[in-house]
Amino acid sequence: MVRKDSFTPDWYEGATPVDSARSLFKWHDPHAFKHPNQGFYTLLRDTFGLKDADFKKPSLCLEKFVIEVPPSLDVELLAGLESLVGEENFTTDTYERACASYGQGMIDILRLREGIIENICSAVLYPKGSEDIVQIVSFCSEHGIPITVFGGGSTVTRGTEATKGGICLDISKHMKLVLDFNETNQTITVEAGIFGPELEAALNHAPERFGAGARYTCGHFPQSFEHSSVGGWVVTRSAGQNSTYYGKIEDMVLSQEYATPRGILRTPAYPRCATGPDIDQIMIGSEGAFGILTSVTLKVFKYHPDNTTRFSFLFKSWEDAHKAYREVLQGEFGFPSVFRLSDPEETDTAMRIYHIHNSIADSLLRWMGYQPMKRCLLIASADGDRDTACLIKRKTTKVCRSHGAFPLSPFGVTKMWEHSRFTDPYMRDDLMDFGILIDTLECAVTWEQLPEVHQQVRAVVKERPRTICMTHISHAYPQGANLYFIFAIRYQDINDYLALQYSVLEAIRESGAAMSHHHGIGKQTAPWLEEQIGQPCMDIVRALKAHFDPSNIMNPGGTLGLDMSEDQREKRWGFR
Amino acid sequence: MVRKDSFTPDWYEGATPVDSARSLFKWHDPHAFKHPNQGFYTLLRDTFGLKDADFKKPSLCLEKFVIEVPPSLDVELLAGLESLVGEENFTTDTYERACASYGQGMIDILRLREGIIENICSAVLYPKGSEDIVQIVSFCSEHGIPITVFGGGSTVTRGTEATKGGICLDISKHMKLVLDFNETNQTITVEAGIFGPELEAALNHAPERFGAGARYTCGHFPQSFEHSSVGGWVVTRSAGQNSTYYGKIEDMVLSQEYATPRGILRTPAYPRCATGPDIDQIMIGSEGAFGILTSVTLKVFKYHPDNTTRFSFLFKSWEDAHKAYREVLQGEFGFPSVFRLSDPEETDTAMRIYHIHNSIADSLLRWMGYQPMKRCLLIASADGDRDTACLIKRKTTKVCRSHGAFPLSPFGVTKMWEHSRFTDPYMRDDLMDFGILIDTLECAVTWEQLPEVHQQVRAVVKERPRTICMTHISHAYPQGANLYFIFAIRYQDINDYLALQYSVLEAIRESGAAMSHHHGIGKQTAPWLEEQIGQPCMDIVRALKAHFDPSNIMNPGGTLGLDMSEDQREKRWGFR
Repeated sequence: MVRKDSFTPDWYEGATPVDSARSLFKWHDPHAFKHPNQGFYTLLRDTFGLKDADFKKPSLCLEKFVIEVPPSLDVELLAGLESLVGEENFTTDTYERACASYGQGMIDILRLREGIIENICSAVLYPKGSEDIVQIVSFCSEHGIPITVFGGGSTVTRGTEATKGGICLDISKHMKLVLDFNETNQTITVEAGIFGPELEAALNHAPERFGAGARYTCGHFPQSFEHSSVGGWVVTRSAGQNSTYYGKIEDMVLSQEYATPRGILRTPAYPRCATGPDIDQIMIGSEGAFGILTSVTLKVFKYHPDNTTRFSFLFKSWEDAHKAYREVLQGEFGFPSVFRLSDPEETDTAMRIYHIHNSIADSLLRWMGYQPMKRCLLIASADGDRDTACLIKRKTTKVCRSHGAFPLSPFGVTKMWEHSRFTDPYMRDDLMDFGILIDTLECAVTWEQLPEVHQQVRAVVKERPRTICMTHISHAYPQGANLYFIFAIRYQDINDYLALQYSVLEAIRESGAAMSHHHGIGKQTAPWLEEQIGQPCMDIVRALKAHFDPSNIMNPGGTLGLDMSEDQREKRWGFR
Repeated sequence: MVRKDSFTPDWYEGATPVDSARSLFKWHDPHAFKHPNQGFYTLLRDTFGLKDADFKKPSLCLEKFVIEVPPSLDVELLAGLESLVGEENFTTDTYERACASYGQGMIDILRLREGIIENICSAVLYPKGSEDIVQIVSFCSEHGIPITVFGGGSTVTRGTEATKGGICLDISKHMKLVLDFNETNQTITVEAGIFGPELEAALNHAPERFGAGARYTCGHFPQSFEHSSVGGWVVTRSAGQNSTYYGKIEDMVLSQEYATPRGILRTPAYPRCATGPDIDQIMIGSEGAFGILTSVTLKVFKYHPDNTTRFSFLFKSWEDAHKAYREVLQGEFGFPSVFRLSDPEETDTAMRIYHIHNSIADSLLRWMGYQPMKRCLLIASADGDRDTACLIKRKTTKVCRSHGAFPLSPFGVTKMWEHSRFTDPYMRDDLMDFGILIDTLECAVTWEQLPEVHQQVRAVVKERPRTICMTHISHAYPQGANLYFIFAIRYQDINDYLALQYSVLEAIRESGAAMSHHHGIGKQTAPWLEEQIGQPCMDIVRALKAHFDPSNIMNPGGTLGLDMSEDQREKRWGFR
């Protein structure tokens, strides 16, 4: 007898041809893939009312990318720019330009899959260092040429989209140097184009690399860790998955250097001082609209992977779970490192993916009162000094048990999650090959707002039939947390997707949450920003923009809600 | 036989007459005093080559303050301002105006003692709430009238000095309300004029005041705690003596409301978000130059005084001590709450004050290798969860012992320090009655800078004969700390004092340290600011100033280094 669920869809496992359209949107490593497992596949198939037969003809976009879009920039200006960096660091090739202007947002992927190439830069330049960037900014200032910057290209907010054309500086080719490592201060200074793994390798091997007395870690592990740049982390105010212990990037920056149309800006390098406004906190999150981050000094931590202790729990309800979660954050016994609480739908999805749903273990859990679509999964780890990490685990366990949680630690749930923490996005490509789209949006809330924001966003998403909406809290503070929404739909076209995305963004804004906790605003969320932070705050951003970039050449055309037309704002961009 | 040291100077213990010149500069409570003890007195007398007879005729300034300075503001404008707040909340009395424009900086006290009244406002207004302030700002904008704000008057940076005249808003009379207490979010929202003890009382009594389930603390205890306002804490980027655990005020603010010439500004209220520049960090430290803080929402902590654990150590050398100190801060086992390390001179002064110098205990300490002018005192406490506080104490002890520290905990040194933490400034008035001046300056450094900054500042101070220079580190971070200098001199006149003050500020700037860790810049340190943070950073501050306050009415005339003449900057203000 063949089991009904033994069917395997035609997941693509072949190579991603260089210069293919697929290579433009495929997540990271062209040779790596990760397929949804049987449990996840079955859940999606059944949710969307599909049959196995619907998973037989993937839309792969393997054909060579042949679109040619002539640069809109004047030939003489292009020649002038080329002379600044040399022929080998300059290209007007459409594929490269599309690569530099598109990110990993769903709107980017949908457009690339449909062969829609728009808003791309006229040329890509590969600066060799800050001196090149200073020269380029000076040239572009003189000639009014817009500049975007490409690091790892993992933006999900249309951050590098060249809505006003111009050029893109790809800093990921040359600008990866470690400029300084200071063990006394526990800091590292790097060029902005260095990627997560390179930074982490340098720190982990500090004794060999720098003659240090200990090993270090940056502590910053966004899901895009493997292919995002430190510069991108800083200018988008990103958070790593361990931010509850290590802090967000704005907690990690000691000082920065920017090339701006007004010249070079170096921020003072003190852990705290009282010399007026905090200039670092003006530049962090500026998303290329004020200047180009060339190098940054980051605080680092001791690297003690042996000290990491992992634990996990199942709660009977969302209410119990987020009460316990808050109690831990307000317990003043230190903070867990990973601290990720899934809502009932996300928990049940995990149960199905890991084949626990309807298993003997599940029967036992139900018998004990941990019911489907009510129970909530919390996965956690603690880092730092060994005794401190153990104490945090012990204290957290006590709080969770007092709220009726069942300990799952023996089953290695956190370790399982860690194993796939950077690779889950690979599944997205598989699913989109069959018209299923998984996207995420996130926001920041105070504890008091949390239940209502969760409810309101879910209500909006669930208005659409056959839609999955999973939520988790993954970055938390004594005063509040983030809410991270993952929704999956079977989509018709770009407008179908945008209707859902816009409704979620609208629900977030209406609920009073912050429009982003760690992805930045980019151009995508820009139309909602002023309504959320208010005109007086937007006016400050505008004043800073006018100060740094009076000719509006730095990532213009929407970034941070700047220079959008009333029409664009009202239509929330819209599409065709 | 009468002991040589049994002489008691003629310390003044009488009342401070209301409206006397003394009442203008006396520290806090007019009826409270604290005299230098015999050990301290002897040290000072001998250091300055004085005799007991020199401490017999104090200069007390008890006579009635009779100076009258006519308001420089037009009578009609004054009438217009009076009509905004009502007769009972308006005064042009010179004493009240001097009170509002002078702070507790040494230059203020020296001027008051010499009867020099300059740079005072034309009128003091006592706004009843934010609506009054909005109206006043609007009126002053229209008529170009400068505004300073007075909270507790504890500024040591000439923060409220009305160098351009205008009016002063004293928010300490009416604006003390708790506007909201939110136990779920662990926040309190207060009007800016509330003082430390009132805020702390409300939080400590949260069950009785707000029906809360627990007691809370703000965790912010600057030395001026008893008579400084929350608004002052925020706009000067202050730190409390327990900041190493609780954070500086910029870590505690969740959101703020300002009345600016451009209208009301409310900052978003999320613990972290990624929606562009951090507006809170633009306004914190703005020292009244951008707008007037009317209310603020602060994060609060559980109040568990029983959990506080205290400990202290003596190190053999400054090098051993600050290595251990740094190791604790970088140990990733949480942070002590009080963590105050005295350099050899401060340690020896403490030894003399507490009569340990030349005692049997001292002989024992010397025999063990803890030598005078080498040994360093560390006092500490840990707060928060009880087990966590104990672990921090245990871990800190281990680090300190590994650097040769001798445990002093059984002698209750931290408790002794806590007992006098807010009252030591009272001694200043006693000493100045006999021509001895004690002043402080502080800066922020990275660990690597610390030894050299300490050395350079000491060298400059010690160039002056018979000068005491004590230093401690009292606020620390994994990447660095503050350095707090206390110097005592026998002074001739204001210029004599200023020569020393300027040389210390110059040494701080030249050494590469930040000009202030927690007192702000005010007008006093303003001439050094641009040289320290650099022109590009100053240009940002100027752009923000131009945005908020195009007519330059908000605390004008030097604040944050804005609108000083080249002459003022070069002369570092100077005096006569």
